[in-house]
Amino acid sequence: MNYGIVIKVLGSILLIEALLMSPSIFISYAYGGDAHHPFIWTIVVMVILGILMAKLRRKNDHHIRAKDGIVIVALGWVMISLFGAIPLWTSGSVPTYIDAVFEIVSGFTTTGASVIANVDGLDKGILFWRSMTHWIGGMGILVFTLAILPALGVGSLQIFKAESPGPVAGKIVPRMKDTARVLYVSYILLTAMQVLFLLLGGVTLLDAFVITFGTVGTGGFGPRNDSLASYSPYVQVVTGIFMVLSGVNFSLYFLFFRKKYKDFLQDRELRLYLFFVGSSVVLIAWNLFMTFGGDALVRLRESFFQVSSIMTTTGFSTVDFDLWPTFSKMILFFLMFVGGSAGSTAGGMKVIRIMIVLKLIKREVSKIFHPRALIPIKVGGKIVSNEIIARINSFTAIHLVIFVVGSLVVSLEGGTMESSMSAVAATLNNIGPGFGSVGPTLTFAHYSDFTKIFLSLVMLLGRLEHFTIIALLVPKSWTKES
Amino acid sequence: MNYGIVIKVLGSILLIEALLMSPSIFISYAYGGDAHHPFIWTIVVMVILGILMAKLRRKNDHHIRAKDGIVIVALGWVMISLFGAIPLWTSGSVPTYIDAVFEIVSGFTTTGASVIANVDGLDKGILFWRSMTHWIGGMGILVFTLAILPALGVGSLQIFKAESPGPVAGKIVPRMKDTARVLYVSYILLTAMQVLFLLLGGVTLLDAFVITFGTVGTGGFGPRNDSLASYSPYVQVVTGIFMVLSGVNFSLYFLFFRKKYKDFLQDRELRLYLFFVGSSVVLIAWNLFMTFGGDALVRLRESFFQVSSIMTTTGFSTVDFDLWPTFSKMILFFLMFVGGSAGSTAGGMKVIRIMIVLKLIKREVSKIFHPRALIPIKVGGKIVSNEIIARINSFTAIHLVIFVVGSLVVSLEGGTMESSMSAVAATLNNIGPGFGSVGPTLTFAHYSDFTKIFLSLVMLLGRLEHFTIIALLVPKSWTKES
Repeated sequence: MNYGIVIKVLGSILLIEALLMSPSIFISYAYGGDAHHPFIWTIVVMVILGILMAKLRRKNDHHIRAKDGIVIVALGWVMISLFGAIPLWTSGSVPTYIDAVFEIVSGFTTTGASVIANVDGLDKGILFWRSMTHWIGGMGILVFTLAILPALGVGSLQIFKAESPGPVAGKIVPRMKDTARVLYVSYILLTAMQVLFLLLGGVTLLDAFVITFGTVGTGGFGPRNDSLASYSPYVQVVTGIFMVLSGVNFSLYFLFFRKKYKDFLQDRELRLYLFFVGSSVVLIAWNLFMTFGGDALVRLRESFFQVSSIMTTTGFSTVDFDLWPTFSKMILFFLMFVGGSAGSTAGGMKVIRIMIVLKLIKREVSKIFHPRALIPIKVGGKIVSNEIIARINSFTAIHLVIFVVGSLVVSLEGGTMESSMSAVAATLNNIGPGFGSVGPTLTFAHYSDFTKIFLSLVMLLGRLEHFTIIALLVPKSWTKES
Repeated sequence: MNYGIVIKVLGSILLIEALLMSPSIFISYAYGGDAHHPFIWTIVVMVILGILMAKLRRKNDHHIRAKDGIVIVALGWVMISLFGAIPLWTSGSVPTYIDAVFEIVSGFTTTGASVIANVDGLDKGILFWRSMTHWIGGMGILVFTLAILPALGVGSLQIFKAESPGPVAGKIVPRMKDTARVLYVSYILLTAMQVLFLLLGGVTLLDAFVITFGTVGTGGFGPRNDSLASYSPYVQVVTGIFMVLSGVNFSLYFLFFRKKYKDFLQDRELRLYLFFVGSSVVLIAWNLFMTFGGDALVRLRESFFQVSSIMTTTGFSTVDFDLWPTFSKMILFFLMFVGGSAGSTAGGMKVIRIMIVLKLIKREVSKIFHPRALIPIKVGGKIVSNEIIARINSFTAIHLVIFVVGSLVVSLEGGTMESSMSAVAATLNNIGPGFGSVGPTLTFAHYSDFTKIFLSLVMLLGRLEHFTIIALLVPKSWTKES
């Protein structure tokens, strides 16, 4: 490994995090809070350390190799979480540093699982920073770093791949750096539009930002104790729509901007994604209406909001869906694993992987009758290579292995099977709330420190799609030669 | 499709079923029951129909092609279930024909999920027949048919593959017919040994057969209302050991008989299977002891019995494991999906598939560092072909898809998520009891007719490993030409 360049890049990331943290100082101060001091001190430490790291070594070798890229991503995410958690802890917003780390890992990984019950009582600077971590984590802080750092060799593609969700992250435009910029432009546009729509609905500026960060980052930290339940139907519908938009592959927006509407609408993943959302909304609305009665349109709105929230792995709620009938809860539970599209800010296994796995099943069925036929797997006319198929199969397998092992570990806390399994499903797929003791009206605060650290790791595994974190645990990563 | 040969073979199967059903006449009569008449009439119908079918067409073409083999297996299983259910219904042992079909499908698929609460009150002939379906289904009635029918061409290998659990069913000895015989010899030996051991423990002859059929067929229909709870520790331990033995690949016993002990013990699947059993027993015993206290050896026995029962997908119980702590229940829940070894009578996904999936994960991790390396997957020194890997991946995927869809369907009945998911896990993996409303002290009787039919299909999908049943649903299976 090239320790020099790794430390250098990590230093730059720390400086960027400090920069992104700084608005919170003023927000805390402006709203009469007292968290500006914790913010200031944390930023000072980060800046000093960041400069030292960035300057420490300066060899001629500026190239990041593939392996260095992986180490940078994995360590980078751990580092920003450990530093980002400091103000939460030193401001007394959470009782322990472990709680703060859990909360901020949950933020950066766009999970939204919280240990804070009294969100209304939070210092506004803390509230803002907590939600901003969603926004930073959604697109990836390293992709952002790439967009401003000079070219760094093959490792930057590796970084991009390791940090961007989904199996087929590719360059949209020739240069990596430009791809990162294109993605950020879509991201910022989406953010600006939602803030505007929310302001038009009478939401305060701070809340508009908090909700938007949670939406476009598909995070789910809300501005109030009851998530979005006490906001108007307008705000709920706007947020629902923007959640759906944030679960779409951001490269497609690039097509959209270029007026290639046909290519946009022909995208197979987009279609399946919208099909999943649509059919789930209908089924749950029907189930709710048959169970609870009431206004059919209200049931449809509740269903739409919750489906788009879970499917995009955001985790906002407008009602306590833990009280819904089993059929509806079960749909939500399985949607947790599906997640959004590749190249979006959403978590989960991603629609494209589900699509390819379904195609593989179809192929095996055909093979019963034509055992010797070579049937390629195609997505939108393009053949998917065996290598990508192998990776998708292993991804699916490892996702389930982590789910199984995770559920066993969490079940040691007691609670029901439903709680344990949904706690892991909700963190591994970066959603936030689950069912039972981690339902939408409750928090993760009741778990032991061990389980909180464990679930933080699970969130990172989910966000970085396993292999990056697992690679870090293999001793080979730490040798110099290869 | 070659309709002539298909009907002919189905006729033979019907005759064999009639033969296997006949002892129940005498048992019912001997124990003073009144189910001998229903048995006699059913057998008469089966014999007449069987002879008609076997004689109906006699073309020169005696060859079963691959496709015919699949149709024979799928239709054969449906047919023996529909006929096997008749005596249960006409004797009034269950209220409806659908209940009878559910019970007998559960029997043949070696599931052991029951709609009968009062087993103690059953006619003994019915009790015997119900358990005998486990024994017949365990090794496969078609494999048995193959062993006595004359050579039938390539289709017989297809039949053998379609009916034998696991991905690597192969010939042990050159001729298919002889392979079938070798397996049956092991099966009969195991049966005889367990009956003997149970008789030595003071079990009555009828109960010894009922328990043994449930054990070696890894079925789980017991002779009493409380499964095996009221039997002595000796009987429980003997049954526990024979369950473990029945989850071992039967081809390995062939190695054992030939005194190739080293090859036997070197088998990778056997080792992983025993590792899963051993580690689960220890973890659950520890969890039970920490939760309930009591005698550590008793906890170990309870744990051993239940782990071997669930892992081998038998489904017997000695205690109400639904009352166990969540951690223990969760281990059992996941073991349901693992199942026994390939080529055993057990259901589930089979240890060898889990092993290969884990090896695939390991390979993808290695590939992070050596992206261009071609690393073959080996089991016991032999390379696993890409074709088998693709089939295993699709099997895993389809297994989970059926689990997901199944859980959604069952959740429409209400009940908890735990009940719905475990009802499907317990039928798909051919175990029997699950948790909650389908726990070990309860039955499946409370479900609607629709759900009972649906779960019968799920049991068949599980037993025949999906593709055979799915192939039947593809219109292509019914055309003549190919």
